[in-house]
Amino acid sequence: MLDAKQGPSVAVDTSHSEHAGLRAVPISDVRLSDGFWEPRRRVNREVTLPAQHHHLEETGRLDNFRRAAGKIGGPYRGLFFNDSDIYKWLEAASWTLAADPDPELERTAESVVAEVEDAQQPDGYLDTYFVLERAPERWMDLANKHELYCAGHLIQAAVANHRATGSERLLDVARRLADHVLDTFGPEQARQGTDGHPEIEMSLVELARDTGDSKYLEGARYFLDVRGRGLAGGDEYRQDHRPFRELERMVGHAVRAVYLNAGAADVYAETGEPALLETLERLWSDMTTRRMYVTGGIGSRYEGEAFGADYELPNARAYAETCAAIGSVMWNWRMLMLGGDARYADLIENALYNAVLPGLSLDGQTYFYQNPLADDGTHRRQPWFGCACCPPNVARLLASLPGYFYSVSEGRVWAHLYAEGEANIRTRENRTIRLRQHTGYPWDGEVEIRVEGEGDFALMLRVPSWCEEGCTIEVNGEPVAPPALPGRYAEVRREWRAGDAVCLRYPMPVRLVECHPYVAENSGRVAVIRGPLLYCVEQADNPGIDLRDVVLPTDAALTVSSRPDLLGGVIGLSAPAAVVAPEKGWEDRLYRARRDRVRGRRIGAVQLVAVPYYTWANREPGAMQVWLRSLRGEPEAFRGEPVSARRES
Amino acid sequence: MLDAKQGPSVAVDTSHSEHAGLRAVPISDVRLSDGFWEPRRRVNREVTLPAQHHHLEETGRLDNFRRAAGKIGGPYRGLFFNDSDIYKWLEAASWTLAADPDPELERTAESVVAEVEDAQQPDGYLDTYFVLERAPERWMDLANKHELYCAGHLIQAAVANHRATGSERLLDVARRLADHVLDTFGPEQARQGTDGHPEIEMSLVELARDTGDSKYLEGARYFLDVRGRGLAGGDEYRQDHRPFRELERMVGHAVRAVYLNAGAADVYAETGEPALLETLERLWSDMTTRRMYVTGGIGSRYEGEAFGADYELPNARAYAETCAAIGSVMWNWRMLMLGGDARYADLIENALYNAVLPGLSLDGQTYFYQNPLADDGTHRRQPWFGCACCPPNVARLLASLPGYFYSVSEGRVWAHLYAEGEANIRTRENRTIRLRQHTGYPWDGEVEIRVEGEGDFALMLRVPSWCEEGCTIEVNGEPVAPPALPGRYAEVRREWRAGDAVCLRYPMPVRLVECHPYVAENSGRVAVIRGPLLYCVEQADNPGIDLRDVVLPTDAALTVSSRPDLLGGVIGLSAPAAVVAPEKGWEDRLYRARRDRVRGRRIGAVQLVAVPYYTWANREPGAMQVWLRSLRGEPEAFRGEPVSARRES
Repeated sequence: MLDAKQGPSVAVDTSHSEHAGLRAVPISDVRLSDGFWEPRRRVNREVTLPAQHHHLEETGRLDNFRRAAGKIGGPYRGLFFNDSDIYKWLEAASWTLAADPDPELERTAESVVAEVEDAQQPDGYLDTYFVLERAPERWMDLANKHELYCAGHLIQAAVANHRATGSERLLDVARRLADHVLDTFGPEQARQGTDGHPEIEMSLVELARDTGDSKYLEGARYFLDVRGRGLAGGDEYRQDHRPFRELERMVGHAVRAVYLNAGAADVYAETGEPALLETLERLWSDMTTRRMYVTGGIGSRYEGEAFGADYELPNARAYAETCAAIGSVMWNWRMLMLGGDARYADLIENALYNAVLPGLSLDGQTYFYQNPLADDGTHRRQPWFGCACCPPNVARLLASLPGYFYSVSEGRVWAHLYAEGEANIRTRENRTIRLRQHTGYPWDGEVEIRVEGEGDFALMLRVPSWCEEGCTIEVNGEPVAPPALPGRYAEVRREWRAGDAVCLRYPMPVRLVECHPYVAENSGRVAVIRGPLLYCVEQADNPGIDLRDVVLPTDAALTVSSRPDLLGGVIGLSAPAAVVAPEKGWEDRLYRARRDRVRGRRIGAVQLVAVPYYTWANREPGAMQVWLRSLRGEPEAFRGEPVSARRES
Repeated sequence: MLDAKQGPSVAVDTSHSEHAGLRAVPISDVRLSDGFWEPRRRVNREVTLPAQHHHLEETGRLDNFRRAAGKIGGPYRGLFFNDSDIYKWLEAASWTLAADPDPELERTAESVVAEVEDAQQPDGYLDTYFVLERAPERWMDLANKHELYCAGHLIQAAVANHRATGSERLLDVARRLADHVLDTFGPEQARQGTDGHPEIEMSLVELARDTGDSKYLEGARYFLDVRGRGLAGGDEYRQDHRPFRELERMVGHAVRAVYLNAGAADVYAETGEPALLETLERLWSDMTTRRMYVTGGIGSRYEGEAFGADYELPNARAYAETCAAIGSVMWNWRMLMLGGDARYADLIENALYNAVLPGLSLDGQTYFYQNPLADDGTHRRQPWFGCACCPPNVARLLASLPGYFYSVSEGRVWAHLYAEGEANIRTRENRTIRLRQHTGYPWDGEVEIRVEGEGDFALMLRVPSWCEEGCTIEVNGEPVAPPALPGRYAEVRREWRAGDAVCLRYPMPVRLVECHPYVAENSGRVAVIRGPLLYCVEQADNPGIDLRDVVLPTDAALTVSSRPDLLGGVIGLSAPAAVVAPEKGWEDRLYRARRDRVRGRRIGAVQLVAVPYYTWANREPGAMQVWLRSLRGEPEAFRGEPVSARRES
């Protein structure tokens, strides 16, 4: 499938990165044919991308480029960083074309490229907000006006477009803009500057990789190094409070934080500077052990769209911006490419299923900006936003998703994610092998991988950390010893012959998960997870009861059932549970003298139904809850009366 | 003490309000001499007011008036509604002068009055932001620019100044401005308008009361009626989403909401329109049963400084703005004056001790804007704010506090609050009696009230709702039957003779209070309250332990001890408690498979010390917590090993 004119269609090209052991297998070389992701990707191509293009046109975002080119008059429309939405859409369209040729999409994308090209100023400058009457204000307010953020998204789009289509048209625009940026800011230039929103860092590294011109890498390093000196205001919100290498905690605006970390990981992949890796690992540990939702979502605060304090993880008031989860995937992918540490792949899987995907409706037409873990039925997806960062961000990730499945390193082929499909993989030794995955993942934990090709190499097969019992692996029916451990890659090395079949069996029992005791809201609660999928309860499946009153018994026997009719086809869970309402008297008061025993008012028993969290809010509005009260501390709910499957509503 | 030149020095004058049964006893007629409030009021006079005047001068707030008067040049300084800080300070100074003559403060206040007077424009307009270059923008953006909000604060200050000092100088300024406002907006005028921040409503009612001119009442009613029609944007934040009489819930910006309700209560007191009272009672019920902290604080969300959803009451992330608690006191006072319903007085007492007072440091020099119920030691009071609404708001409330102690109605004299002191009370029948309170309240629940004066009237003595056992009342040593019920006024009617003594005994056991089960963060927790005072634990008193690990046993025997040395003199509480840390293994993870039993890691036992919440953050920075984990659900913490008073640190 690889076209000689094109570069590798990968979002992050570590082919020549000295300090990244792994390189991605291009999007164009992986074909998903599963029932989970590929239908979502088809909706992305057929519904989401056209609808987004329509919004970009309707809301004046494209007109802003025409205006900058002198084609039309009138005022600039919308937020000052709206250019970035165009660029993210172009990136999404490009990755889509890498996998699935589509003449109509190609024409649309080319027409958008032409608008961008025409809007570039003679000196290479490109930001449609700062033209005409605002031209004198260029680069005057880097802290707040997102010029380098927009430039970074243009560069990412241009690299994607080049790698996916072979066209250098948008890449030339990006190079001219990048040259203009580096002529304006830098250690040798008269002006120093830090953009209020990281993004330029990772894009410049990719431009260096795509063009082979190291000056762009130098530029990325400059923007990384200059940050934290107060040039962008010195605050946590803009990730300018401390020099990068001195960061200890994940703080401030969550998207900014993970975009910055992604850029730093890119710089590390090229330079190998130990302080960068130490900082990244420190930050990763802080995020994952103190400040991350069970979904993989991050940034718990509405105020400043920011990370909260340690263990500050409210459910209904979770911010957990879709873009932040996407940024986390981007960062973790770069960390994974450094050395194949499975914890990064674990987080990528979790975030993809449970933090990114809920951001998009099943029909591909509406979006969440915030992703709460409990709701009263009022939080609904919207078709677009004034600040529309999330929609095209989801689109570009879904478009590039096949590129996150496999990597290669010396003597090794890595499988990070599982889904029915096939891949043509060019190994580091320039051998081409074909892998075919046959699996019902994520609904079923059995994965067969057929190897077509020959040679002595290791298959590195990710054993998800949720697979606590470990996994059995067979090659051609023979068990492989030792058994694979969860949260690691199982290394299966042999002289492969065409037709060899590896069979992985990941047990998928329903798991009840508890939360750190310092997360006050989740005390005495459990989350329900099966395989990689987090579950929730929705009012639609549990009519007539107040979800806040549901109590799961300790020994809840959860029933797993296939529901091909439901929500695009899911596996549903159900369990007998008690409904225990607050005692009489609580209706009209918030506080009362403490009583010695908890006396819930037992309403009855229900067969509680749970569905995957990514599907929530796709039916009529209603309450939703991830963390469910559990028996602990409320024995009266069950005492003396067995929980039955009878529903009282 | 009453000076014939002056009106009654009351913040809300219901003397002639047809639909308010009660009227306040003037500030000038009540003298506190207690050890709790009066020292705070002295600090307010001697430290806070001079320091605030200094800030008003330093930050350009007074210069803005000089600039508007043409006395100085330069740009306007600060936020566009900074005039209101000057007015609130003037109101605070005026109430202070009503109780305590102070020639220096009087001179300072007069000089500020002169600056305000000089800044008024020839047509009566007064807002120093919209003069000179911005004069053409007057009244153009009522939704956002707070012109009527500032006008309202001027009017309140002017009425206070008039009532306290007898001077009509500032009142004349206010009348001219009010006349200008009513010539500009109104049902008969060409322009309709709704200010984005309620305040004008209650101020115009008071102006009508002070001047006897009913057109100001009409104006207040107009601004109340026009609100909710979308003229201020139609959003909840600005309390413009629905017409007032259709409001069902306390939503949007908390200060705006309670200021609006205060104004509506004022209009009701004059007009008796049933729909207003119904709405106010509905909103009060919604607030107190769903959306209020145990402190009496309101407005739980940082975002929009707003009320949250039902039961959304986070502790560490409580917003609970000091101004919102003050606004709640203002609203509840007006409700109380309507008919003497004790629930409003209960809320006033709670908010004063536990929501307003924490907003001010013990030394009177620093302020909280937000009042969290748990903290890690980072939330500290500040000497001033760019948006400095809270500091002068606290000052004016402390200055006017004596006016909240007593009221009179036909045949009745009401005691709402308790503190050592005396009052000269002119009854509705124009008899003057003197009441002397002798009490150690709020530390001690015994209150003796000596009556000096004669006549047949009822003493209405508030029995706080926290006094669950009821209260014994004796007159001259003889018990009064029936015993008084909590949350009511005990009516003691007799033919009083000079020297009669009423003795009230409010038992003050330490109470453990639990929270509605839907408040997720407080599950399994208790708050500690004694008398009217909420307690908290602070790191300063409990060194070496993580407060999050403290677990109170169910049968916690709390020790009460007088601590005259501590925090200005308090009663401290202590109790044996267990320290139960998260199990080993939780350090580096947020989630894990649920285990059947809670296994806390028992660190040891401590004698936990609690101090009144209003004193928190007056020592070295450290953690603080109001809601404490309790035994429930964690029996292992105590099982088999008695809790000792031994401290392990």
